[in-house]
Amino acid sequence: MVTRLSHFFLRTLREDPADAEVTSHRLLVRAGYIRRQAPGVFAWLPLGLRVKARLETIIREEMAAAGAYEVHFPALLPREPYEASGRWEEYGDALFRLKDRKGADYLLAPTHEEVFTLLVKDLYSSYKDLPLTIYQIQDKYRDEARPRAGLLRGREFTMKDAYSFDYTDEGLDASYQAQRDAYERIFQRLGLEYVIVQADAGAMGGSRSEEFLHPTPVGEDTFVRSEGGYAANVEAFTTVAPDPIPFDGQPAPAIFDSPGTPTIQTLVDHANAVLDKPATGAWTAAHTLKNVVLALTHLDGTREVVVVGVPGDRDIDPKRAEVAFAPAEVEAATDEDFERHPLLVRGYIGPWSDTGPILGEESATGIRYFLDPRVVDGTSWITGANQHEKHVHSLVAGRDFTADGFVEVAAVREGDPAPDGSGPVTLARGMEIGHVFQLGRKYAEALGLKVLDENGKLVTVTMGSYGIGVTRILAIIAELFNDDRGLIWPESVAPFDVHVVATGKGAEAYDLAESVIGELEAAGLDVLFDDRPKASPGVKFGDAELIGVPRLLVVGRGAADGEVELWDRRSGERETVPAADAVARLTAR
Amino acid sequence: MVTRLSHFFLRTLREDPADAEVTSHRLLVRAGYIRRQAPGVFAWLPLGLRVKARLETIIREEMAAAGAYEVHFPALLPREPYEASGRWEEYGDALFRLKDRKGADYLLAPTHEEVFTLLVKDLYSSYKDLPLTIYQIQDKYRDEARPRAGLLRGREFTMKDAYSFDYTDEGLDASYQAQRDAYERIFQRLGLEYVIVQADAGAMGGSRSEEFLHPTPVGEDTFVRSEGGYAANVEAFTTVAPDPIPFDGQPAPAIFDSPGTPTIQTLVDHANAVLDKPATGAWTAAHTLKNVVLALTHLDGTREVVVVGVPGDRDIDPKRAEVAFAPAEVEAATDEDFERHPLLVRGYIGPWSDTGPILGEESATGIRYFLDPRVVDGTSWITGANQHEKHVHSLVAGRDFTADGFVEVAAVREGDPAPDGSGPVTLARGMEIGHVFQLGRKYAEALGLKVLDENGKLVTVTMGSYGIGVTRILAIIAELFNDDRGLIWPESVAPFDVHVVATGKGAEAYDLAESVIGELEAAGLDVLFDDRPKASPGVKFGDAELIGVPRLLVVGRGAADGEVELWDRRSGERETVPAADAVARLTAR
Repeated sequence: MVTRLSHFFLRTLREDPADAEVTSHRLLVRAGYIRRQAPGVFAWLPLGLRVKARLETIIREEMAAAGAYEVHFPALLPREPYEASGRWEEYGDALFRLKDRKGADYLLAPTHEEVFTLLVKDLYSSYKDLPLTIYQIQDKYRDEARPRAGLLRGREFTMKDAYSFDYTDEGLDASYQAQRDAYERIFQRLGLEYVIVQADAGAMGGSRSEEFLHPTPVGEDTFVRSEGGYAANVEAFTTVAPDPIPFDGQPAPAIFDSPGTPTIQTLVDHANAVLDKPATGAWTAAHTLKNVVLALTHLDGTREVVVVGVPGDRDIDPKRAEVAFAPAEVEAATDEDFERHPLLVRGYIGPWSDTGPILGEESATGIRYFLDPRVVDGTSWITGANQHEKHVHSLVAGRDFTADGFVEVAAVREGDPAPDGSGPVTLARGMEIGHVFQLGRKYAEALGLKVLDENGKLVTVTMGSYGIGVTRILAIIAELFNDDRGLIWPESVAPFDVHVVATGKGAEAYDLAESVIGELEAAGLDVLFDDRPKASPGVKFGDAELIGVPRLLVVGRGAADGEVELWDRRSGERETVPAADAVARLTAR
Repeated sequence: MVTRLSHFFLRTLREDPADAEVTSHRLLVRAGYIRRQAPGVFAWLPLGLRVKARLETIIREEMAAAGAYEVHFPALLPREPYEASGRWEEYGDALFRLKDRKGADYLLAPTHEEVFTLLVKDLYSSYKDLPLTIYQIQDKYRDEARPRAGLLRGREFTMKDAYSFDYTDEGLDASYQAQRDAYERIFQRLGLEYVIVQADAGAMGGSRSEEFLHPTPVGEDTFVRSEGGYAANVEAFTTVAPDPIPFDGQPAPAIFDSPGTPTIQTLVDHANAVLDKPATGAWTAAHTLKNVVLALTHLDGTREVVVVGVPGDRDIDPKRAEVAFAPAEVEAATDEDFERHPLLVRGYIGPWSDTGPILGEESATGIRYFLDPRVVDGTSWITGANQHEKHVHSLVAGRDFTADGFVEVAAVREGDPAPDGSGPVTLARGMEIGHVFQLGRKYAEALGLKVLDENGKLVTVTMGSYGIGVTRILAIIAELFNDDRGLIWPESVAPFDVHVVATGKGAEAYDLAESVIGELEAAGLDVLFDDRPKASPGVKFGDAELIGVPRLLVVGRGAADGEVELWDRRSGERETVPAADAVARLTAR
């Protein structure tokens, strides 16, 4: 097929869009691939639609190779299945909700676990029907609080979501592996670097969960990896707790005056001034226990104030805290929260005072108290005595205070040991491009999906969920492959195979171009032909570079001698060759 | 490609779905093509998705041949453009409306005129950019009051909607014709009988409008056609008004007692009993003027009672009334309406009484009065005198009463003259499968789409809108092509090219089938292979007939001799041939 620019629906723009925050957004709008309709909602123009279609073809091929069958669900779905799974509430404001003319509740689906589960429940009833993996490529909706970065975080986006159904855990492992392998093949075909990291199961419930991250400094996600092969999203990183220390021989806690020390740094300075030095030579932030007050908003709307104790040299990582306390929402406690809890003495909070435990189950306040996993029994801390300008030292965990539980909310640092013993980790940033996920039996239980096993016994089905953000990957490819003149698509997803540019005033170049294009078409190539009679060569080359088809064929002055130029958009190399050779080289690939 | 039934995601059902009102719905659900999610909202299973994809490919090919370029808009759109065009209000309850987390208004688009207009306004500015036709194949939403008949009237449905942009009326005519021609080619390729009828412009505004109807007794639309070539939807049919008659010499109106005559039939009987006979021999319903009270609900919510006078032998056609009074909604007046208008004497309503005009501009009541176009000046009528049990005769239109306007609300009848003089019309029923429409400048004016013409003058663009209901057509094809055993797809849209059924207990038939399938695949055919080892031949043939792939290849007892059977699903013909011949015949087409 040939598409002629003289008639094609395309207008490249000289100016960057005012709202473009990232390169992919800027270039995809300027080169005429997408157009904004509302915050985080885009229309696809012909060029964009072509790239998207090629990307989807690659995904479909690999899904077929993995034995998955394609279906298609509506975006508009009734409330009931999402009510049954709990997600109608859990999704909070991120869910687009609406009512029909009869007042019935509907939503625009963010993902489709529930209705896939119900579909299989409707149609299948025996272990013989399994394993089954079905998928769709479909437009999804999430009412992001802050849609941004063009297609990278939209409110409407295209996703390939697959769901597997098995009746044994081994079956789920195999189905999971098949999708995981397919994802690797997809990213390899796209030339997209990826790291597979352990991920938090999050709001989806379930057990094993891995993300495919594309490593990039502009990524929204932080992940850690060790030389020994460990890799995890920071939300999923688990702390290696030290061994407990015997209480025997440890001194009793002692309260000391600490005027003007509401911060860790002032406390450490004061401790070094007034306390005996430790064996290590000096008190540091790591010897202190920092108690942070957080406010949780539970699904039922109630607000709870909790305190988290972490070593004083660690910050709270808001994303880890979000995961640790999900599905409740977490924020720092406000002045109002403190007013409502006068027993918490700001700047000097601690789990213990000379009146007894201040925090935790047996405490005076009844406020729940959580600890970082490093605060094991027998560790000794300098921390607040919960009296104004007073701290306590030699406060021993497990002896003098206990917690309501341990939480992974402290920030991960370079050099922290990987939980699998594979050495210290380094930190990097990445962008999520895929997610594979063992849901387990959560949805099947909530919605009653059971099958008869070999012994005629009803067993609950175990599921997996596997997502790739189609439009997000497209944006990431655009983000990766470009230069200061425009986009440079990988051949696998380029909107056209060859971009032919004819220049000059006479008919000669255009005639030769037509003949070359005929041969390219006959070989099954998709050709974009810049046949605009009045556009200058500068305009044509500028547009070609902006649009970013990787292979250019230029027919100009050499046309009289039957010669054309082959341009490589990526390397910039140009080569003058006889037209026949050019065709042979382009069609040979 | 081969798809093996032993693993395929498919479950055919023995029972008809409880809610299936029509054959297509019943068979598409039973054969595993679609599955209901909510009223008028369906999921597409692998078989259905394949048929839909083939249908979409045909549409895409013909759109490309017509010079149209594909784009893709979101379903979720902001309110503002639809507010500007007036459709946010006009669509009434049929529009799915929602708010985002910030309270901004959004809708699920029923069609996309507004945003296509804005897109072109964004990107184009000169007559040189035109003509342009762009289209999308996209899921649309309409909150139908009564979704029914499966895919035939859903609340979510897939449509191909194209929009053309021109700066001259001649240009619009050409763009319109190109789409109209493409539609004819599409329906011809699908083997779908169609009639092109004049249609009402309806809520879309604009001028020329034609519908493609598939003639079928179960169709929702009624249309008329004459032997001379006229064809129109009844909503668009225009009445041929007779010539006016001179007032001279016509007797004056006279009121007469008419006890117990609130209906046309009782009135006619009474007239024949008490009045002098007319020249034609007897009074008939056609001599009487029936005055029907209707209640209009305007867009601003106000309710207005109006009266419509039609010849007594005609009924009001609710669909024609709907069009005549659009965008107001029309219903029969209620008891409450009559109570609020005590001057209207029920059963004896007329435009005139001995006290003067009762209806119309100069009347006592101020109630608007509309007439059927046949009630021309000089026609003489028997009608209500607006007093209980009194009528008037010799009441002459234009002399004794006038109207606020003429409306096309009377039902069309077989034998009515076509408005173009091409003879009497017959009535038939049909189902809408396409709609081509000259919108004109309505949307471009509302949204400010102008381009510079050859003289550097800003001119408003003129548009066309062209729709094909993809999922509806699929359902119509299923409705048309089936028998008591299942579906029978046309080859152009069948989910597979060949359905291979292997039977028997030994490996022989399966081995031969595999070898035949290898050759079919090599020839580029899509094959469905029923390789289920434990299913009986009866189950396999039953499923094959239900699924409806038109060409079956059966490998059974003859396998030992290298023979297979070719079955034609439509004709039922079966033929035993050597395997090599079967492959040659199937791949030759």
